[in-house]
Amino acid sequence: MPYKAISDLGEFGLIDRISSLVGPTLDASPNLLTGIGDDCAVYQPTAGMLEVTTTDLLVEKVHFDLLTTPLKHLGSKSISVNVSDICAMNATPQYALIGIAVPPSFSVEMIEELYKGMSHAARIYGVAIAGGDTSVSRSGLFISVTMTGEVSGERLTRRSGAKPGEMICVTGTLGGAAAGLRLLMREKNIMLEHIEHHEPYNKSLMVDLEEYADAIKEQLLPAARIDIIRFFHSRNINPTAMIDISDGLSSDLRHLCNSSGTGAVIHEGRIPVHSGARRIADELRDDALGWSLTGGEDYQLLFTLPKERFPDIAEHDDISIIGEITEKDAGISLVDIYGMSIDLEKLPGYDHFRS
Amino acid sequence: MPYKAISDLGEFGLIDRISSLVGPTLDASPNLLTGIGDDCAVYQPTAGMLEVTTTDLLVEKVHFDLLTTPLKHLGSKSISVNVSDICAMNATPQYALIGIAVPPSFSVEMIEELYKGMSHAARIYGVAIAGGDTSVSRSGLFISVTMTGEVSGERLTRRSGAKPGEMICVTGTLGGAAAGLRLLMREKNIMLEHIEHHEPYNKSLMVDLEEYADAIKEQLLPAARIDIIRFFHSRNINPTAMIDISDGLSSDLRHLCNSSGTGAVIHEGRIPVHSGARRIADELRDDALGWSLTGGEDYQLLFTLPKERFPDIAEHDDISIIGEITEKDAGISLVDIYGMSIDLEKLPGYDHFRS
Repeated sequence: MPYKAISDLGEFGLIDRISSLVGPTLDASPNLLTGIGDDCAVYQPTAGMLEVTTTDLLVEKVHFDLLTTPLKHLGSKSISVNVSDICAMNATPQYALIGIAVPPSFSVEMIEELYKGMSHAARIYGVAIAGGDTSVSRSGLFISVTMTGEVSGERLTRRSGAKPGEMICVTGTLGGAAAGLRLLMREKNIMLEHIEHHEPYNKSLMVDLEEYADAIKEQLLPAARIDIIRFFHSRNINPTAMIDISDGLSSDLRHLCNSSGTGAVIHEGRIPVHSGARRIADELRDDALGWSLTGGEDYQLLFTLPKERFPDIAEHDDISIIGEITEKDAGISLVDIYGMSIDLEKLPGYDHFRS
Repeated sequence: MPYKAISDLGEFGLIDRISSLVGPTLDASPNLLTGIGDDCAVYQPTAGMLEVTTTDLLVEKVHFDLLTTPLKHLGSKSISVNVSDICAMNATPQYALIGIAVPPSFSVEMIEELYKGMSHAARIYGVAIAGGDTSVSRSGLFISVTMTGEVSGERLTRRSGAKPGEMICVTGTLGGAAAGLRLLMREKNIMLEHIEHHEPYNKSLMVDLEEYADAIKEQLLPAARIDIIRFFHSRNINPTAMIDISDGLSSDLRHLCNSSGTGAVIHEGRIPVHSGARRIADELRDDALGWSLTGGEDYQLLFTLPKERFPDIAEHDDISIIGEITEKDAGISLVDIYGMSIDLEKLPGYDHFRS
């Protein structure tokens, strides 16, 4: 069966296909008055709640490589990274607008895969895909997702509320996404070398990726921690400060401390390094702790709480207490397993403009 | 003075520059609680109002050509096209989030020009630039603007409320943007031919663009009709249906009629064709009426009103009544100056995926 060209369908035909794919995400949103098909989406905000809103770009060859990224996963990830930003405000995600610029080489089926992933993820998070914009691109695929959410004034958590003496907590594990990316890049390069040398494809030479599926999943299909936000709301826990770990623990801890006007000390031994990342680091002779600190894309939550709230989080088996907020003068440091202090302010985070 | 490379400044240095450029847009928005510098922007919606939200992509070599587009104008236009969508709901624009993916060849000064244009336009419309995302691009410049606005339930105007017998009205003039684009493309091609043939640049061969400044301005620096929305609100005029003319009168009238379940008849003699477009059409031996119907990018408002509201709009010298809504069965047609009826449902609108 041949693939369908977007030019056969036209812009409005494509929008119809997209509408039917994202339609099921609207079920959970009775306050959406107008979705796709008008100049704007229209919704009724909940009385007394604050609105939060965020936007994230996913750019081909910068944020993803189509040789190693299934389009359905990419669609899902583009939703998750925005949900993660909403969660970082202690808020509940509600509506998404999606802009895509598509290379002419893309088929209708490829676009549908992308939106199937978006729609699937949106339903899991309770997000309604309420509108967007479509265009061709004269080069790579561009995805822009904007998401809104809501939060009460009492629950709203910024980066800026941390105080000296408070616990520094992190959800889940770190370094898995970076490890998964390194592995995918290695396999891609092996594949390209084979193609370049016109060698037959020998599957027995490929590493068994099943073994590393956990880390690869962290890279391709990260999950935003909306479960943690629901846990917070159910226990009436309001972190004093919070940020999602998208640039790496080191860089995002620095953002949180700079916004709060504090320092911090964290302990190497308490950082929840992803077990798959450790195994991949052994295989690639790389450093899993480094990936945790500067690799980025983990989409876990980093937050602070007064010590007296310890019992509230102690029972949660996916939250680690990794250190303590200090006075600003003390700087931001990591104490390694030998007791040596490392200045995290000198450790660079991931910077798209410099790499 | 050499230009500054973005890689020298880094992502966070660039965000600091952007923040200071868009800072002045925040003055008029006391309900914005958190702007750039956290995971989300946070604002307090006005009690009892509906939220409207829209997103538009501007993609290099699809929506703009940097050879003919000053970056400051491009920044301004990226704001205006979103304000136009907000206006089409009879709503007031409030906050913008801006995503940009920038080619590595861009200097810091070029990005600043872009944001100066955005900031200038935002202040004119009363829009606060509240957040965004920055990335490199491995190919062209990519701009994504998302805008929110508010409107009361009584004023909210969709595409779908038009009724047979109502007047079809349009603001301003049409065809200017398409005419300006044709002229810019011609001048660009002349310039490129000169370069290709290594000919010296002979300014006397260039057309005097001053003469056509009006049409070129419609293309490079369109203004959203927030003045019309303010006029509506001041006179308590609520159109029954409205859409902004971004794809061309023919295509956007079709969208309005399809949403409303109606037909329409409009009259060639009443279409407010841009006077500069007429002169350019003469020069290029092209058709100014065609540009008005299918050229797109005029960002005027097309709306419907019951005939008894005629006195309300009669005094406004920038609103034209071009026809009447009919029953669906009557189709969508244009009556030309000879009295012949032309079926507009067969006239294509601009389609990025087909051109």
